[in-house]
Amino acid sequence: MTPSEARTRTETDTMGQMNVAADKYWGAQTERSIHNFPIGRDTFVMGRPIVRALGILKKGAAQANAELGELPADVADLIVRAADEVISGQLDDHFPLVVFQTGSGTQSNMNANEVISNRAIELAGGEMGSKKPVHPNDHVNRGQSSNDTFPTAMHIAVVLELNERLYGSVGKLRDTLHAKAEEFAGIVKVGRTHLQDATPITLGQEIGGWVAQLDYALAEVRHAETGLYDLAIGGTAVGTGLNAHPRFGDLAARKYAEETGFPFRSAENKFAALSAHDALVQVSSALRTLSGALMKMANDVRWLASGPRNGIGEIVIPENEPGSSIMPGKVNPTQSEAMTMVATRVFGNDATVGFAGSQGNFQLNVFKPVMVHAVLESIRLIADACLAFNDNCAVGIEPNREKIEHNLDINLMQVTALNKHIGYDKAAAIAKKAHKEGLSLKEAALGLGYVTEDEFGQWVVPLDMTRS
Amino acid sequence: MTPSEARTRTETDTMGQMNVAADKYWGAQTERSIHNFPIGRDTFVMGRPIVRALGILKKGAAQANAELGELPADVADLIVRAADEVISGQLDDHFPLVVFQTGSGTQSNMNANEVISNRAIELAGGEMGSKKPVHPNDHVNRGQSSNDTFPTAMHIAVVLELNERLYGSVGKLRDTLHAKAEEFAGIVKVGRTHLQDATPITLGQEIGGWVAQLDYALAEVRHAETGLYDLAIGGTAVGTGLNAHPRFGDLAARKYAEETGFPFRSAENKFAALSAHDALVQVSSALRTLSGALMKMANDVRWLASGPRNGIGEIVIPENEPGSSIMPGKVNPTQSEAMTMVATRVFGNDATVGFAGSQGNFQLNVFKPVMVHAVLESIRLIADACLAFNDNCAVGIEPNREKIEHNLDINLMQVTALNKHIGYDKAAAIAKKAHKEGLSLKEAALGLGYVTEDEFGQWVVPLDMTRS
Amino acid sequence: MTPSEARTRTETDTMGQMNVAADKYWGAQTERSIHNFPIGRDTFVMGRPIVRALGILKKGAAQANAELGELPADVADLIVRAADEVISGQLDDHFPLVVFQTGSGTQSNMNANEVISNRAIELAGGEMGSKKPVHPNDHVNRGQSSNDTFPTAMHIAVVLELNERLYGSVGKLRDTLHAKAEEFAGIVKVGRTHLQDATPITLGQEIGGWVAQLDYALAEVRHAETGLYDLAIGGTAVGTGLNAHPRFGDLAARKYAEETGFPFRSAENKFAALSAHDALVQVSSALRTLSGALMKMANDVRWLASGPRNGIGEIVIPENEPGSSIMPGKVNPTQSEAMTMVATRVFGNDATVGFAGSQGNFQLNVFKPVMVHAVLESIRLIADACLAFNDNCAVGIEPNREKIEHNLDINLMQVTALNKHIGYDKAAAIAKKAHKEGLSLKEAALGLGYVTEDEFGQWVVPLDMTRS
Amino acid sequence: MTPSEARTRTETDTMGQMNVAADKYWGAQTERSIHNFPIGRDTFVMGRPIVRALGILKKGAAQANAELGELPADVADLIVRAADEVISGQLDDHFPLVVFQTGSGTQSNMNANEVISNRAIELAGGEMGSKKPVHPNDHVNRGQSSNDTFPTAMHIAVVLELNERLYGSVGKLRDTLHAKAEEFAGIVKVGRTHLQDATPITLGQEIGGWVAQLDYALAEVRHAETGLYDLAIGGTAVGTGLNAHPRFGDLAARKYAEETGFPFRSAENKFAALSAHDALVQVSSALRTLSGALMKMANDVRWLASGPRNGIGEIVIPENEPGSSIMPGKVNPTQSEAMTMVATRVFGNDATVGFAGSQGNFQLNVFKPVMVHAVLESIRLIADACLAFNDNCAVGIEPNREKIEHNLDINLMQVTALNKHIGYDKAAAIAKKAHKEGLSLKEAALGLGYVTEDEFGQWVVPLDMTRS
Repeated sequence: MTPSEARTRTETDTMGQMNVAADKYWGAQTERSIHNFPIGRDTFVMGRPIVRALGILKKGAAQANAELGELPADVADLIVRAADEVISGQLDDHFPLVVFQTGSGTQSNMNANEVISNRAIELAGGEMGSKKPVHPNDHVNRGQSSNDTFPTAMHIAVVLELNERLYGSVGKLRDTLHAKAEEFAGIVKVGRTHLQDATPITLGQEIGGWVAQLDYALAEVRHAETGLYDLAIGGTAVGTGLNAHPRFGDLAARKYAEETGFPFRSAENKFAALSAHDALVQVSSALRTLSGALMKMANDVRWLASGPRNGIGEIVIPENEPGSSIMPGKVNPTQSEAMTMVATRVFGNDATVGFAGSQGNFQLNVFKPVMVHAVLESIRLIADACLAFNDNCAVGIEPNREKIEHNLDINLMQVTALNKHIGYDKAAAIAKKAHKEGLSLKEAALGLGYVTEDEFGQWVVPLDMTRS
Repeated sequence: MTPSEARTRTETDTMGQMNVAADKYWGAQTERSIHNFPIGRDTFVMGRPIVRALGILKKGAAQANAELGELPADVADLIVRAADEVISGQLDDHFPLVVFQTGSGTQSNMNANEVISNRAIELAGGEMGSKKPVHPNDHVNRGQSSNDTFPTAMHIAVVLELNERLYGSVGKLRDTLHAKAEEFAGIVKVGRTHLQDATPITLGQEIGGWVAQLDYALAEVRHAETGLYDLAIGGTAVGTGLNAHPRFGDLAARKYAEETGFPFRSAENKFAALSAHDALVQVSSALRTLSGALMKMANDVRWLASGPRNGIGEIVIPENEPGSSIMPGKVNPTQSEAMTMVATRVFGNDATVGFAGSQGNFQLNVFKPVMVHAVLESIRLIADACLAFNDNCAVGIEPNREKIEHNLDINLMQVTALNKHIGYDKAAAIAKKAHKEGLSLKEAALGLGYVTEDEFGQWVVPLDMTRS
Repeated sequence: MTPSEARTRTETDTMGQMNVAADKYWGAQTERSIHNFPIGRDTFVMGRPIVRALGILKKGAAQANAELGELPADVADLIVRAADEVISGQLDDHFPLVVFQTGSGTQSNMNANEVISNRAIELAGGEMGSKKPVHPNDHVNRGQSSNDTFPTAMHIAVVLELNERLYGSVGKLRDTLHAKAEEFAGIVKVGRTHLQDATPITLGQEIGGWVAQLDYALAEVRHAETGLYDLAIGGTAVGTGLNAHPRFGDLAARKYAEETGFPFRSAENKFAALSAHDALVQVSSALRTLSGALMKMANDVRWLASGPRNGIGEIVIPENEPGSSIMPGKVNPTQSEAMTMVATRVFGNDATVGFAGSQGNFQLNVFKPVMVHAVLESIRLIADACLAFNDNCAVGIEPNREKIEHNLDINLMQVTALNKHIGYDKAAAIAKKAHKEGLSLKEAALGLGYVTEDEFGQWVVPLDMTRS
Repeated sequence: MTPSEARTRTETDTMGQMNVAADKYWGAQTERSIHNFPIGRDTFVMGRPIVRALGILKKGAAQANAELGELPADVADLIVRAADEVISGQLDDHFPLVVFQTGSGTQSNMNANEVISNRAIELAGGEMGSKKPVHPNDHVNRGQSSNDTFPTAMHIAVVLELNERLYGSVGKLRDTLHAKAEEFAGIVKVGRTHLQDATPITLGQEIGGWVAQLDYALAEVRHAETGLYDLAIGGTAVGTGLNAHPRFGDLAARKYAEETGFPFRSAENKFAALSAHDALVQVSSALRTLSGALMKMANDVRWLASGPRNGIGEIVIPENEPGSSIMPGKVNPTQSEAMTMVATRVFGNDATVGFAGSQGNFQLNVFKPVMVHAVLESIRLIADACLAFNDNCAVGIEPNREKIEHNLDINLMQVTALNKHIGYDKAAAIAKKAHKEGLSLKEAALGLGYVTEDEFGQWVVPLDMTRS
């Protein structure tokens, strides 16, 4: 045996033999895919969420098959043990395939079958590549097809990432903003519509608007998530379930529910479950709505913090990096910039998902990997960006009380409050005089003699105008 | 009085006088808008759904203000009568403004105020343009701002169009397809994945997959609709409700619910309701999902009907127009073409809505008209296309039984059924021989002597393979 | 004859008879399309640019066929006369078809054939519907197919609209802005990056940046236009040119060039010309870039005009409509709002075009009408919006010199200019003191005693810092 | 000194001290960015093309400054040596920052400044972190700002990737297809429009249509590339060039041209160059057009290869992976699936770029990193997918002559050729009889007695109908 041979072993599939690195569990089909799809290798490898979901999928399938008498108990046990290692992440290095492969995710399904088979063989003291006692197709893939397993893994992966990554991160930012809204409930400031000065609001109300948007968008993502509970499993190759035990789909789905705690079930119509991924499209678009809400918030933050002298400057945000080496006080709103860039990326991902989702033919949509990848990327980016924004910006938002009061003081819109006391015409005359002569409202009002200083103080109370 | 003067009257606003055609009810601000925004005049005039919603809005507002003592009963009555004419469509010619105007829809709100005011004045025997006894701002717009009325009208318009136009039209197509699925439940045919021949399904199952997609997408549109029940009304200029009676928003929303039968309510957070339209974005993206499902269906229909001789040709669709003048039997799938073109348009509209929805600043999003227009256009196009597709294509879909049977007969995938009787290896040998020598499965099986004719007939039963 | 019969005549095609309104020139196929495609009827009728292009197309085709001996001279003459009426717009009422029809535009091609045939028959004193002496297919459509005529008309229509509508309108706005840039070349103001105060620029430089963007985007649209000079004409049904005279494509294209003045030519590869519309996709995306540039400009304008007191307020824009009835001086930047709404619509149209453009199969892309409609809509909206913006906003942009000077005066970034005279450390100390104590730079500099008043005046010269 | 201290060193910036791993060259600002932007860390690190471009940028800047007397020759030499290592890729591990950071790419610019400074210090035998003798700001960043350097690096990176990666890969596929088109020029087959059988073409013509699309799209990408030759360098912070030597921009650009061989120049209008990236948007949209052309080609390939028995099956493509373990002859068109998935991703990336490109404000667009990242990703994916498609599919495309001939034989559209010999009516009668009775054209023609066998053979020559 030459040293070179020592480092590989021979794996086989129906097309013949392939050499595989001896320290890797994958088999011939995975090896072929590496060679045939060298596309975006550095950044588009199927990641942790998909690999983990494939592990959950194969574990539950083995358990269900065992219960249904389709697999011997010892074989199922070996599969479960190997699948648990896939779930835990121990075997991530054995999942080298990229997103841009067969559009049904076939090779990633086979990657899971091969790795679990070989690891199970190893656990049983057998010879890797021998397919005994655990065969990748006959045992690990029992009653399954790529066409139903990969979309099942897609759903499981996205549900877990939403729950373990997204909701908490966005929620943390939401809670910070909510606390700020309450803290600043008493700070009256200028409202702005059409970018123009308008009647007063409180800073708490302004921030509370952002919170309401996040609450709505999160609720919509959660609603869309429920569409993912319907799994393709049990449909096998075309949706009919050929070659699977009739109760396999339901039972496997129950296993996934037990493993994860989410109410997965076998989809009522498996033909749709293989040939379309509309529930995933809906999740993607809800993420787009969420990122749109975050963009609005982040834009407001940077505009409110603009200045320090020639902008709006009504809030102060943390200074995290040097701005100019020459200009103390210049704070670039970098967390807003990262957040809004993430939003544009999420919009792009959603365009990809919507397009791909429309392109199914007959019994299969073959854009599965690119769809799930884009959704998982959006989840990851939004979650990361919310944590970064929360920790490095939101928690440190403070009102610039001096600027807020000054702006409110020179704002002319408070004149509205005089209408009921002196009538619209005199109120308008005051506003016009103030605008034309550059006076404060009070100066103009007193100058015209329409109100006394006491009356003005009593009637023009910005806080009352906010109805807070 | 010159003839020319006879044909106009003078209307005024805070900027001065404008000449308006004597036979039109609108006032100075509408007239200004006509001059200032000559953008897309021929195709982008605010249409029936928006005008009707503005009528409902103004009617309910007058009723609510009257109940709250904010308007005299007789003034409110006049407004209600004029608004009813707006609702019914009698005054559509008096709403000339286009989508591309002020981004809050201010001029369309004023258009409604002016038309209702002048029509009410006329009903009262007064002089148009006099603003007596019904003032466009003080009375018709009482307790309102463009910033809360226009988004309220947006929601009302979309809810009504969804219910009166979309659901019925899409539902009609869905029901036709559902009936076809049941009718063709017993027709066994080749399934296709990756565009390649696969194991059998029934034509009913194939069509049923389309129905399942439509059911899901419609349910998602209906879910998104519920977000529109929250109305901005009561928020006035910046969300605080300044100048509106504190109970106005709730009461007006109740009037809209009574008028329309939908559970409208005043939104809990009016700051979000003015500065974002995320519920509309969600409706738009659900429409995108629906159009994606329709695109998949329409594509399947045209591929299945492709031919007549050199395509798949498993279904026959109605011939509605001459194809080639030379080629009898050529039926172009024109309804599929119209439907898929509509889908690309809905995708584009959704891109517009998502983009516009992300661009709010502070207390206002000023992309309101373009957003509601795009959503209404998508509703209209999907509804029209579904009716056309239903009446001119779906109802006439028939199986080409001869072709279906022939295809099924020559398909090699049925070999799967032999696995359990003669083992995988012999089954594979049969399939290989058939493929290589261009034989039918049966010919190959008998030729190899692995099965008898009786056994083949007993074991290879495509219908059983569909599990239907 | 009953009165009802009097108002229709019978038209025929290969599928049989249809009743057509007696006062309309169209024939049976157009009538069928009206019935089969009731989709978006009110706003999606093929408009002037397409109808005119079809007229140009048919006129040149008749001339070319006559020269090649494929049509008798008298028949060609009649077609030319009728086509000239189509070109001029006299017959627009006879083109009732909508965008969402057969995806090759077949019925619009037939609409042109039928109208020209019947009008030519009428000119010849014949009987409409008789197809004698001018047959819609054999004569008007001679050597043509919908598959090559409609894409040819698409190119002609877009080239004409770009040249007659877009370039002039955008150019007018560009020229106004260019003149403003020159007029305000001497006005020094604060620059802004990351929305934060930065070193000085001139208002002329700021506006000049917008002009440079428009110049680039317009040049890109003009470049993309050149791709439209390649016409599908001559390809007939599948690109081979079957049934057309071999020199027909080239000669017809030369006729279009002569008629319009643009260098149209028969495309080198007609298979691509029928099955893809990439040149149109490129025009669409260049329009997207143009609208993005306009959006940036319009956003800058409204931010610079924000206020009047609590925004940036460095420019003043015309007041075109009443803002609030209470707040003199409030000018809503409505032209910016219309322009940015147009931009979101153009982005959506481009999404439609890109999607549709990718969906060709084999020898035909059947998304032709929706593609050309979206591009023409984008051209129209951009052109209209630029004119409106120019006339109602750009021409009236004026600097608010007082605010500009005040902002520049309190800006701290000019401290940069002291670096070379007193060193970075002392300059930084000045800036820090100014920021901390709310002083002007000069006050801080004099307060620290690092410079004299003369020196400060000599060294800190914002205009020099603009290098203008 | 503790072991822990031994593994870090102290770096400083204007905000204070940071601990940095001792074996990394970066400084305090890079370290801050790592902590502040933990967003998409695993897949969104700025990659090789950007790092290399930053190296080229800093090298040329140092050379230009040295020539202009702005930097001592020895300092410039040290910078050049360190920058050369950045260019070569030796220091890639020292560029850890992600895309989602400050929107001007400030920290990546500082990352380059810090790494080059410390490596230059090391080369000079100095102490890392001491900023002597080579200061990251004063020397490496001399006459520069992030605002002009990062967009300059964006342009350099994209130009290099287009030329070194994209053109060759797409060109290779194009050349393969072109050779196939020539090879199959004599194979006559059925054309298809509306997915329906149409008049004949050659397989060479069909493939040639794809080549023509690729040629056009590549030419458009090359055209868009020319817009990238205009560099922001020389504009510094706001476009005025403050603090840079007046000739610095031109000279630095010339250095980049010399280093790379591309005609880079300092942009005429630097205000636009900082505040917009329209040339990059144009490149992105041209890549979208290219991917749309690739999608059409890949779709045609998989449809033409569909079957093996129940599809079109006119071409055969290489079998690269096992399809079903039961069905020999099933070849999934996996390279088409990867290619079309890439297309949907490129469309999404383009949506991101277009959106981000429209969001500039005043003197800066702060979506720079997300824009360049998306464009580079599109280039990479298209290039990789074209190579994979070429090597694993295109080179092996072969006609299925038997199926092609059979399809052509049964096609009815050839009847067109009889028109001129026996007239349209008789030809139509032949076609109708053939369609109705399931005959071949010849059988029907002979059966009706309209032509003799010899005449049919002489007149109905599909090859002639292709005009090839």
